[in-house]
Amino acid sequence: MSSLDVVILAAGMGKRMYSSLPKVLHAIAGKPLVGHVVDTARTLAPAQIVVVYGHGGDQVQAAFAGDTALHWALQAQQLGTGHALAQALPYLKSDVTLMLYGDVPLTRAETLKALLAAAEGGKLGILTVTLANPTGYGRIVRNDAGAVQSIVEQKDASPAQAAICEINTGILALPTARLAQWLAELKNDNAQGEYYATDLIALAVRDGVAVVTTQPADAWEAEGINNKVQLAQLERIHQLNQAQALLTAGVTLADPARLDIRGRVVHGKDVFIDVNCVLEGEVSLGDGVQIGANCVLKNVWIADGAVIHPFSHLENAEVGAGSLIGPYARLRPGAVLEEGVHVGNFVEVKKSTLGAGTKVNHLSYIGDAQIGSGTNIGAGTITCNYDGVNKSLTTIGDNVFIGSNNCLVAPVTIGDGATTGAGSVISKNAPAGELTLGRARQVTIAGWKRPVKHSK
Amino acid sequence: MSSLDVVILAAGMGKRMYSSLPKVLHAIAGKPLVGHVVDTARTLAPAQIVVVYGHGGDQVQAAFAGDTALHWALQAQQLGTGHALAQALPYLKSDVTLMLYGDVPLTRAETLKALLAAAEGGKLGILTVTLANPTGYGRIVRNDAGAVQSIVEQKDASPAQAAICEINTGILALPTARLAQWLAELKNDNAQGEYYATDLIALAVRDGVAVVTTQPADAWEAEGINNKVQLAQLERIHQLNQAQALLTAGVTLADPARLDIRGRVVHGKDVFIDVNCVLEGEVSLGDGVQIGANCVLKNVWIADGAVIHPFSHLENAEVGAGSLIGPYARLRPGAVLEEGVHVGNFVEVKKSTLGAGTKVNHLSYIGDAQIGSGTNIGAGTITCNYDGVNKSLTTIGDNVFIGSNNCLVAPVTIGDGATTGAGSVISKNAPAGELTLGRARQVTIAGWKRPVKHSK
Amino acid sequence: MSSLDVVILAAGMGKRMYSSLPKVLHAIAGKPLVGHVVDTARTLAPAQIVVVYGHGGDQVQAAFAGDTALHWALQAQQLGTGHALAQALPYLKSDVTLMLYGDVPLTRAETLKALLAAAEGGKLGILTVTLANPTGYGRIVRNDAGAVQSIVEQKDASPAQAAICEINTGILALPTARLAQWLAELKNDNAQGEYYATDLIALAVRDGVAVVTTQPADAWEAEGINNKVQLAQLERIHQLNQAQALLTAGVTLADPARLDIRGRVVHGKDVFIDVNCVLEGEVSLGDGVQIGANCVLKNVWIADGAVIHPFSHLENAEVGAGSLIGPYARLRPGAVLEEGVHVGNFVEVKKSTLGAGTKVNHLSYIGDAQIGSGTNIGAGTITCNYDGVNKSLTTIGDNVFIGSNNCLVAPVTIGDGATTGAGSVISKNAPAGELTLGRARQVTIAGWKRPVKHSK
Repeated sequence: MSSLDVVILAAGMGKRMYSSLPKVLHAIAGKPLVGHVVDTARTLAPAQIVVVYGHGGDQVQAAFAGDTALHWALQAQQLGTGHALAQALPYLKSDVTLMLYGDVPLTRAETLKALLAAAEGGKLGILTVTLANPTGYGRIVRNDAGAVQSIVEQKDASPAQAAICEINTGILALPTARLAQWLAELKNDNAQGEYYATDLIALAVRDGVAVVTTQPADAWEAEGINNKVQLAQLERIHQLNQAQALLTAGVTLADPARLDIRGRVVHGKDVFIDVNCVLEGEVSLGDGVQIGANCVLKNVWIADGAVIHPFSHLENAEVGAGSLIGPYARLRPGAVLEEGVHVGNFVEVKKSTLGAGTKVNHLSYIGDAQIGSGTNIGAGTITCNYDGVNKSLTTIGDNVFIGSNNCLVAPVTIGDGATTGAGSVISKNAPAGELTLGRARQVTIAGWKRPVKHSK
Repeated sequence: MSSLDVVILAAGMGKRMYSSLPKVLHAIAGKPLVGHVVDTARTLAPAQIVVVYGHGGDQVQAAFAGDTALHWALQAQQLGTGHALAQALPYLKSDVTLMLYGDVPLTRAETLKALLAAAEGGKLGILTVTLANPTGYGRIVRNDAGAVQSIVEQKDASPAQAAICEINTGILALPTARLAQWLAELKNDNAQGEYYATDLIALAVRDGVAVVTTQPADAWEAEGINNKVQLAQLERIHQLNQAQALLTAGVTLADPARLDIRGRVVHGKDVFIDVNCVLEGEVSLGDGVQIGANCVLKNVWIADGAVIHPFSHLENAEVGAGSLIGPYARLRPGAVLEEGVHVGNFVEVKKSTLGAGTKVNHLSYIGDAQIGSGTNIGAGTITCNYDGVNKSLTTIGDNVFIGSNNCLVAPVTIGDGATTGAGSVISKNAPAGELTLGRARQVTIAGWKRPVKHSK
Repeated sequence: MSSLDVVILAAGMGKRMYSSLPKVLHAIAGKPLVGHVVDTARTLAPAQIVVVYGHGGDQVQAAFAGDTALHWALQAQQLGTGHALAQALPYLKSDVTLMLYGDVPLTRAETLKALLAAAEGGKLGILTVTLANPTGYGRIVRNDAGAVQSIVEQKDASPAQAAICEINTGILALPTARLAQWLAELKNDNAQGEYYATDLIALAVRDGVAVVTTQPADAWEAEGINNKVQLAQLERIHQLNQAQALLTAGVTLADPARLDIRGRVVHGKDVFIDVNCVLEGEVSLGDGVQIGANCVLKNVWIADGAVIHPFSHLENAEVGAGSLIGPYARLRPGAVLEEGVHVGNFVEVKKSTLGAGTKVNHLSYIGDAQIGSGTNIGAGTITCNYDGVNKSLTTIGDNVFIGSNNCLVAPVTIGDGATTGAGSVISKNAPAGELTLGRARQVTIAGWKRPVKHSK
């Protein structure tokens, strides 16, 4: 197989995005458009990937900070696709150069592989699509034998040519050895004064280089993004594709049109995801996991049989097997729940470990805590982990019973089997096995009168 | 009218569901597929319903535990639809046998009644559909007079037969008297080595039994489920059908495509349901009830004029007329709210009765409580109903004012017209009409310094 | 340009809405149907708008209470569209009368302007649409020269006429000078015994008045609403139109099909709105504002760079630049947050001002409070603003540290730089710079035994 370089054009401004962000950094499924293209390009195992950057180049490069394998070619002025390709020329050393676009995010790797296969042996390959309405696109003109002769732009098309429905997507597989000469021959004698990569086809035909075409399975694979309408359309297509992949793998989805995956989901058997969930980052769902309606999960690991009730929001957290979470539970970064933990409604857990079978069922804030197993945390309990400048640790043993509405003023330790009284402020360590409380005496005020309504 | 038996084939494994659950137990609208078929069959008032079970049979039977009216026929090996029907034969005593499928859940009763009516008088009835693309299905072959001659499978179809778009759904109305002989004659000389019920048609034609066909109003009525993609498709069709029925009956839906009903909804006039709600079990909505966006309601009874604000989660609860609930209210099993009750944000109510006009508006947990009318429960109040092993009752009278952040340590009684001070722990009964509190004296510590930031 | 009067027919009952509300008061995007028509009519700058009311007229008039510019004509009995127009006749003084319908809400102003332009010079203009299936509608019958001759109703149509796909929408631009005579000539010799405005066309042709037609860009512009199915359909069309307008203006929407706007949105650059949000009333979103999934925003002003996390519910509130809100934050009327404020999960803020950089991150109720800048409110804090009859103010200074689970019993003032201890009830003013607390002594009860499980 021929060796391969990939050039990704990512210098455009994207004026119709009405944004301070360069066009290729707008996201689909939470990843920049050009990130999708780079990731797809990598599956082709190219010798090199060259990103041609220009408008907002610092931001584009910053988006790939740490990715040292990419090459960057500056296109200081945007003088057309042929000019962009010329900027990458110094990097190109492989047999074939595949030209991709940072704003065409959803091309399948299989589609590109088929194009490269068709172009093997020094041919020029064009990815084309056939549209019901080709208006505005460059038409693929063939001779009687079906061989591609040229690409004719809309404004230059004769009526017969305008009727051609096969159009150029701009994605090209090019014989690298020819590029230096061809690019030097490109002319900018057009209305925009730009150098078009499209004109390479005519040069190939002139030089007797065979021109071949392949088509993607779906037309959206070749669709580019110039505005937010198109961004939203491809976002939904991509989301439906991802949902379809989960369904095919056996995940049950209440509504494939109401699932958003912005990252990667790995899953076991018999997973159920209810309507309107958003999954971000790396999400791992064990066998039999059930995700309720309207949950937001980001970078979470959920073990077998755990149930996440509706309206829960989990981020950078681990949920042990058989745990019951929510509704309205918020697990924040560093929440680690062991097996069979219950975290109930209006409960926030941050940077804390909860041992097996421990329950925090109602209206509590658990932050910077280390809690043993079999412990019950009463409703309304707060770990007072912050004194205004420092965060401190609350340590709670096994089989502890924390009464309702407690303040546990960290640093503080509650021993195994300890009990605390309702409404206590526990600011000193509470010994194991004993009842500790801090509570004012209950008194009834004789003769007290209720306030009366003020006159306004 | 002829007497009727129904046979439901429910023995399949459903390998492409990638599940430990037998295929027919996967759910649409929260009910197993085969449950939909049984329910539809019952509307035909058959003498008997025979479920042919096999793969995962224990689970299938367990799903109908307590339903003593069903007959069960074991198909130990899955040797085809004809073989399945043969297992049910000993039960069949009526004039007509209607053959249904546990994985074809959405056939309308009207459709089946029309098929049975067409087959009256000892005819064999086939439910057929006409598809734009019939590839893969058995084609209905008719003679010049339009009479059905046979069903030809895809692989055996001549080009002319392959062009036939009317296909066999597999749903058959059969003359029971013929079945013993016909089933005995079925052969399994095919690639799969199975006995096909389809072959009954040819036997009927041979024996001069008239073969008739009817079609459902919608093709999806005959669609079966073999994978999660199809399960999701029929789920959405079913949900849209249910939404359409509510709209037709006068319910206002903000978005029919974002409503999930998994059970039964009864409703009065001028009911409004906002986007993205999930209704489960038995839901009763009185006149003028408004359900806000993103609510989850399960087995709830909501009286006239009540308003449920967004993000509320109600389960096995009753809401009195004119009550205002949420946003973010959670009513758990046994929550009974009388007229004009207010339950506000981040409030959980469980196994408690709230009298008319009582308000619990903020951040509270009310469990195992009996609260009178006209009472106000302060923000952050907790009924301490659990001592680690036992649940106890909190009793609160009429016109009580519970101060904010109270702990009411059950068992405890607060008398009519009593007031409690903010931040009190009330562990002894509070007398009617008086102010009771338990509060430490407020002191200011002279010369105290704020903590300083620890060096790390 | 000719002078213009608009007549809006709004007298119908809407029996198939199954509602106690008159049909034209049912809402799309939170605004009554007839309100949409009035608003569109106003963009045409007519001399007068006359609403013909009848069924539920008091309610209809009440919906426009305070709008003194409308004229009201009573149609006591609903005797047809011609009869309705006749009721408005006494008000009509301009050159042209445009006839609109209170249950046809989504006609674009541009469409009406084009109709009026075509009818200039005393012509009669008909808005027509061409339908694939025109069954049931009045067909536009033209002569060989293409001139409109008459409108033929379904029941009177010859086969050739029934095949005409261009139909009458009922929206007419009429030469006012002719109306008195024409309306007097209308007959009710039809099955319904009604007077039809449609018959005006034949009178115009008879009198040699030119009849012209124009069509809307989209057929839904002419669709009327007779039931909740149609109401839901037009609601979704309208919502998609609004989403499309936001996208075109550069707003990023995660899913245009899951956005509901019931009012008006103004926005800066680089605004992102995640799935399933509901925006009501007047919503202003500054540059770079991000709205998380499932948020409900009503009459809110959100400054540049603020982030609203999922499940937040904001109403009549202001959010300062760079503030972080939610998840699960509830801002109620009168919540005013200055720059860089954090309001976290399960926090309710009502009628309170929070100074720059102040944080209320967890499980708190802040009502009727004036809070300075740089202050930290501990988890579980409650402003006790209500004594059962009066609301009082809590005043908190700058750089205050309120400990967790505090009750601040209003009226009360906490001085600048003050600190309060966890679990305190602060009912007297707390001096600036000092530590104030109210806390019982922590004790451990020797020999206490945990409760044992009661036998039932």
